[in-house]
Amino acid sequence: MRVLGIDPGLRNTGWGVIFVDGPRLRHIANGVIKTAADSATPDLAQRLAELYRGLTAVITAYAPDLAAVEQTFVNKDAVGTLKLGQARGIALLAPALVGVPVGEYAPNAVKKTVVGVGHAGKEQVQHMVRVQLPGVRFESPDAADALAIAICHAHHMQGRALREVLPKGAA
Amino acid sequence: MRVLGIDPGLRNTGWGVIFVDGPRLRHIANGVIKTAADSATPDLAQRLAELYRGLTAVITAYAPDLAAVEQTFVNKDAVGTLKLGQARGIALLAPALVGVPVGEYAPNAVKKTVVGVGHAGKEQVQHMVRVQLPGVRFESPDAADALAIAICHAHHMQGRALREVLPKGAA
Repeated sequence: MRVLGIDPGLRNTGWGVIFVDGPRLRHIANGVIKTAADSATPDLAQRLAELYRGLTAVITAYAPDLAAVEQTFVNKDAVGTLKLGQARGIALLAPALVGVPVGEYAPNAVKKTVVGVGHAGKEQVQHMVRVQLPGVRFESPDAADALAIAICHAHHMQGRALREVLPKGAA
Repeated sequence: MRVLGIDPGLRNTGWGVIFVDGPRLRHIANGVIKTAADSATPDLAQRLAELYRGLTAVITAYAPDLAAVEQTFVNKDAVGTLKLGQARGIALLAPALVGVPVGEYAPNAVKKTVVGVGHAGKEQVQHMVRVQLPGVRFESPDAADALAIAICHAHHMQGRALREVLPKGAA
């Protein structure tokens, strides 16, 4: 099973794909889709279209079975939150349009699953992603976050699958 | 020239299409895309996909030359702003993906253009939309807002076209 993690942002959207085989995880690919405002993409609508095309290319290339997106909703200001919301809408849309179910996780839930504590720092998260995906190299911190989201989703889905298969109270 | 106005929201997205022939405006169509959370669309990603498909159907049916989206960024809370941002991202994306240029207007700019004052109430806006688009019937207040955005964009584009054609100082 392939799981796509997405860490959305208007400038930089990290993505990471892992292969999940029971308890074993394997890194497949990671990267960043950059949609900075420049002469080629001057307006917001074009930047969002670029982000959508980038994510669609990733989904076409790696054919994930599941996707998960980080659920950040607290930001320093309303303008920043709206911008993040716009990018996040595209991150949720791209997998959903091709029938890939999309999970959502709060940043603390991702940290708690990957590191063990909800208030872990970025370096701790990256360390644990490296431990769980031996040999991985991140294209950027955003890509590392995206891999952490994918790992979190893999663990949660396995927990759910176990609970559905095992008798009550066993899992 | 056909102009599509969009008033985005996660539950209700209003849309309106007008025909612009120089200074004359004519109503073509308006409506609302509803994407409430229910059993058929339980999660956010599916609701956004439904919104995207709805907007794409409108764009296919009415083939607008231009589109405009309301630029609201102040909301009572961060959760509400993020939700609005997600819907707004889809509203900007749908026209942009098929090459329709998308303008953005703050609510006060729309009111100022349509009514004459930036702090006009909803009823004043609806009244002036009825005056400028004789015979129009709104499917809902959100659809009326969307028509107001389309009217605002038509006026601004005409102003820009005039400034480009006329000698300096004449417009």
